[in-house]
Amino acid sequence: MTDKKIFKYIYGKPFETDAAAENITASEGLPPFVSVSEDFLHIAYDMTSNDKIYGLGEAVRGINKRGWIYETYCSDDPMHTETKRSLYGAHPFIVIDGKEVFGIFVDYPDRVIFDIGYTSVNKINITVGSPDYVFYIIKGETPMDVVKNFRKLIGKSYIAPFWSFGFQQSRWSYYTSDDVKNVINGYRDNDFSIDAVYLDIDYMEAFKDFTVSEERFPDFVEFVKLVREKNIHLVPIIDAGVKIEDGYDVYEEGRDNDYFCKDESGNDFIAAVWPGKVCFPDFLNPKAADWFGMKYKTLIDCGIDGFWNDMNEPAIFYSEKGLEEAIDKVLEYKGKNIGIYDFFGLKDTVLGLSNSFKDYSSMYHNTGSGIVCHNKVHNIYGYNMTRSASDAFKKISPEKNILMFSRASYIGMHRYSGIWMGDNQSWWSHIKLNLQMLPSLNMCGFLYTGADMVGFGDNCTEELALRWLALGIFNPLMRNHSALGTRDQEFYRFENRNAFRNLLKLRYALVPYLYSEYIKSIEKDEMMFRPLAFDYRGDRFAEAVEDQLIVGESIMIAPVYESNSIGRMVYVPEDMLGVSFRSERDYTIKSYRKGHYFIEIPIDEVVIFIKKNKVLPLVDSADCTAHLDYSTLRFIGDIEGKCNYTMCRESGVSDGRSIIAKENYEVVGTGHCDDLSFGKE
Amino acid sequence: MTDKKIFKYIYGKPFETDAAAENITASEGLPPFVSVSEDFLHIAYDMTSNDKIYGLGEAVRGINKRGWIYETYCSDDPMHTETKRSLYGAHPFIVIDGKEVFGIFVDYPDRVIFDIGYTSVNKINITVGSPDYVFYIIKGETPMDVVKNFRKLIGKSYIAPFWSFGFQQSRWSYYTSDDVKNVINGYRDNDFSIDAVYLDIDYMEAFKDFTVSEERFPDFVEFVKLVREKNIHLVPIIDAGVKIEDGYDVYEEGRDNDYFCKDESGNDFIAAVWPGKVCFPDFLNPKAADWFGMKYKTLIDCGIDGFWNDMNEPAIFYSEKGLEEAIDKVLEYKGKNIGIYDFFGLKDTVLGLSNSFKDYSSMYHNTGSGIVCHNKVHNIYGYNMTRSASDAFKKISPEKNILMFSRASYIGMHRYSGIWMGDNQSWWSHIKLNLQMLPSLNMCGFLYTGADMVGFGDNCTEELALRWLALGIFNPLMRNHSALGTRDQEFYRFENRNAFRNLLKLRYALVPYLYSEYIKSIEKDEMMFRPLAFDYRGDRFAEAVEDQLIVGESIMIAPVYESNSIGRMVYVPEDMLGVSFRSERDYTIKSYRKGHYFIEIPIDEVVIFIKKNKVLPLVDSADCTAHLDYSTLRFIGDIEGKCNYTMCRESGVSDGRSIIAKENYEVVGTGHCDDLSFGKE
Repeated sequence: MTDKKIFKYIYGKPFETDAAAENITASEGLPPFVSVSEDFLHIAYDMTSNDKIYGLGEAVRGINKRGWIYETYCSDDPMHTETKRSLYGAHPFIVIDGKEVFGIFVDYPDRVIFDIGYTSVNKINITVGSPDYVFYIIKGETPMDVVKNFRKLIGKSYIAPFWSFGFQQSRWSYYTSDDVKNVINGYRDNDFSIDAVYLDIDYMEAFKDFTVSEERFPDFVEFVKLVREKNIHLVPIIDAGVKIEDGYDVYEEGRDNDYFCKDESGNDFIAAVWPGKVCFPDFLNPKAADWFGMKYKTLIDCGIDGFWNDMNEPAIFYSEKGLEEAIDKVLEYKGKNIGIYDFFGLKDTVLGLSNSFKDYSSMYHNTGSGIVCHNKVHNIYGYNMTRSASDAFKKISPEKNILMFSRASYIGMHRYSGIWMGDNQSWWSHIKLNLQMLPSLNMCGFLYTGADMVGFGDNCTEELALRWLALGIFNPLMRNHSALGTRDQEFYRFENRNAFRNLLKLRYALVPYLYSEYIKSIEKDEMMFRPLAFDYRGDRFAEAVEDQLIVGESIMIAPVYESNSIGRMVYVPEDMLGVSFRSERDYTIKSYRKGHYFIEIPIDEVVIFIKKNKVLPLVDSADCTAHLDYSTLRFIGDIEGKCNYTMCRESGVSDGRSIIAKENYEVVGTGHCDDLSFGKE
Repeated sequence: MTDKKIFKYIYGKPFETDAAAENITASEGLPPFVSVSEDFLHIAYDMTSNDKIYGLGEAVRGINKRGWIYETYCSDDPMHTETKRSLYGAHPFIVIDGKEVFGIFVDYPDRVIFDIGYTSVNKINITVGSPDYVFYIIKGETPMDVVKNFRKLIGKSYIAPFWSFGFQQSRWSYYTSDDVKNVINGYRDNDFSIDAVYLDIDYMEAFKDFTVSEERFPDFVEFVKLVREKNIHLVPIIDAGVKIEDGYDVYEEGRDNDYFCKDESGNDFIAAVWPGKVCFPDFLNPKAADWFGMKYKTLIDCGIDGFWNDMNEPAIFYSEKGLEEAIDKVLEYKGKNIGIYDFFGLKDTVLGLSNSFKDYSSMYHNTGSGIVCHNKVHNIYGYNMTRSASDAFKKISPEKNILMFSRASYIGMHRYSGIWMGDNQSWWSHIKLNLQMLPSLNMCGFLYTGADMVGFGDNCTEELALRWLALGIFNPLMRNHSALGTRDQEFYRFENRNAFRNLLKLRYALVPYLYSEYIKSIEKDEMMFRPLAFDYRGDRFAEAVEDQLIVGESIMIAPVYESNSIGRMVYVPEDMLGVSFRSERDYTIKSYRKGHYFIEIPIDEVVIFIKKNKVLPLVDSADCTAHLDYSTLRFIGDIEGKCNYTMCRESGVSDGRSIIAKENYEVVGTGHCDDLSFGKE
């Protein structure tokens, strides 16, 4: 017998993705369920009807991924209906929990197809359309074991700064510094806690990366300073594409140094996104990556300490060539009596212009190991953009932990930043998707994450906003973001301000717990958000729960995600203490025995279930994380005797990474109590 | 005090929609919450936070319509995401259940906006953008009362033939008679019960209404006969648009007699749908309607006894003029260095070609009362198409009750046909939408209805198919239908055939109950499918249930609509008998006290809850409805003493309408029993 946990298989000449942080010696032979040919890898595994499949990070559908076909392919597609196969991130890792327990990680930077009981109810078929790939089989006694072993392989997760656990407000767009001030005042004047406001694409001059519109944000340095004095962080967006414009330094440097991706002829590959025509920095070229990363200095020098990297799948609205061809095709129809299929052809031509395979196939990288076509390495483009920034931050500003998260991602990028769950919609079903993605992303090391609360696209309602907020207060990245043309959804704009205020305050009261659990999950390669199946293995009711999560070591959440609800059904997998919070100080405590319950949850309440013999620390809320006062610490729980709790706090920054101080508390009590005695050990 | 139940208000010169079957004298004055101006009608009503709002027929979202903004506007849009405002049918009727109980029916054939707590949480705002309208206030003690009074106003529902309660299989498309035979054999050879197979657009010669492709369906009369001998009904589709083609009699007759809608200049209005360029019969012109209705005779003479009317919103892919303008617009971009907003403009131009307001505004009707622009009467076009066919059927074939249902609809059309719920998707969320639409449509008199089981668009899975089937067996219109390019979903194609077979048989065992309850609902102006709120008024848990229904007088259903479920939470609103059917003869009975339960429901089971002192009749299943043998009747239930059940059977047809015979049974028992004694009274 061997206690080897990870088996690596290499075939052909795979492109090095840097997903793994550890270099494992490749195994000989192949598992029996794997077949290879000269053209593809095929992993075919037979499930029993009870096998559960976890993983795939950012993907649609449930925590158990059975019953659908997924493709890991970074895709700019905001319509996250349940039949989509790909979203923004590519995370080709699954855990099989059945008669055998193991994980499969296909480390391949182009499309990987995971057919998990879609074509045939009890079959997994994983296909890679190339003879060059790496894959890993990861063993473990339990799914959690497998995840931990996988996480050990791919390395420690990025630590987000403490302030980024505060509430953050975004919109596409706050166009001027006055718009930003109004938002800040909207929050502060209403006693709504907040830590950050986002700058979407319109803060830039003509969508040019690393510029700030002087007209709309005059004296930006002073403005950032002013805002910081109000304990607000400004977080600007950085897009992947660099506008083609003579005289624009970033463009000219990239052009002159061959830092951009090329086309077949060796000219700069040109496509259009927000700024119109752009070139794409070649993040797979180490020199280009270094160069682009250091560009963030412009904004860091203005006092900026947070970024979000967008459009880095990369999204392409159209290429010059594609558009020309499309227009020519439309021209052919001019004056002709076109049939219905021609019409559909015309429609598809125009719709097919964006994110086309043809364009990706015409784009080339000059990597350390030669020229590579983009379509072979598509999934690691956004990863490398973000990594280039992360590497630069340590040089530019080692004394600060700069917040960063990205839209596109691949396994391994979690070492450098967080991700958000992409451009979702103001749909009730996306509250549930937010919940279900959390554990899946945690498995892949993405611990600093969250969905755009209240939904990016489409119009929200006040009820949706409140219910989403009740889940949002547990998201590490707790951001309200909405799209151009949709209804305003800053929380102070709604009628029931009291409810919004109280839920925001509750978030701040929970920050010490959330940050501590986040840090511990990083350190132990664990998941901060876990399916009930992971904590209550063997409990078939728990194993089927798709709409509740265990958060950290102490609590379970069960948010409402349906309109016009007076509450919801909850499975309590062991004896627990239910705490119905109307506000951080106004709550009702009730003991639940293991079982199924209908729990009433009014629109302005949040219910948290505390595990037996575990405690939930709370502090008094504040207007921002900087004002949280840990001397107001108290513990809620139902314990017999003693219970220990380790609190993690950010005590400084070294080499761009937060230094974490720990305090161990011994909490003492008998029975359930909302103000337990405690002392530092 | 008055016992007047219905108050009618008329303003300006409204277009007569024929929605109401009864002519009510108009009331003077207006309710206090209604304001009118010269340009619009505005109904503004203040809700309390507990008011529930029902109605709107075919619409997205829950049974309680609160929290969204809807527009009644017949729309060809298959993406039924939760933020859509309009679907195929227009049903401007709501019931307010709160501090006051009453209904509002805005009888207006163009767009009516229902803002039900969307803009402001506790406000209803109903807006009609015209000074010419009729609206009704309908009183009642309870929501059910209001519905009954409304239904009395709009007249008795269409009675579908008995055979149409059998299972029906459709796909876009079965291209040839061999395709149809294969489908029939697929069902019959596997002992899967079935009564009908559908012919989608491809049975026609070049999509020409009332033609049959001789190449693909040679000797159609003989084929229909052959299929009927196997107890299968063929149901062809009829589209609204008539192909422009010289020599095509339907087109030439329409053109020569001015039976088509006109453009501004008085020429035939030309648009493109499936056949390419078409003209639209002017169903608001009584002569044109008579003419088109009689055209169905061609197919009825071939032995056809069922139709579905499609594309009758009317859907328009593009108009000649719209396409020319779009192509010219695209041309302007040729060779230009276009910016990103130009690109979006180009995209919108092409996408905006379909179902455009501009086209609807260029289309004119020659009604009995003069020329009317289509955009003023848009919502009654499909209604009048279907009515024209219904009127003709009585002349063509008074001895047959011909099945008919339509995609577009308006209030009042329920007197002439059923509707299906339009082009949905193979989404789990659309199982729930199927369930939630049933009571809403019943309120508006649409009793013969159902969703395309397993979903029309997108790809299904076997699990989805089984779970949807478990709801589908209760839909009066029980049809499996799927779109071109999607995965085949005829039930015999799946792996677990035993489960599909058993559920299909269970449907047939239930047909006597379903048909009886359907007929009684028609006769009493009641709802066959009711929210729990209607039967358990005052029970706040029941009032919040959005995913269970009362079906007829005896049972409650609670289908599973989520992937990878082992069961679901169910609210049992009074003591009930739960019957878990594995097959019509293999089931487990369990008594439930009022309360919340997690009910295990394996993938191959259906759970039905029988009300206390009510009985569920079952007969032995058969391969088709014609073979159902009522001598095998048995009753399941939990009764003390006696219980009466009225069985309704189709005993013949007169004037195109089924004649219903009734039998009263007295069922006797003590305690729960699956084979109660009974006798005819």
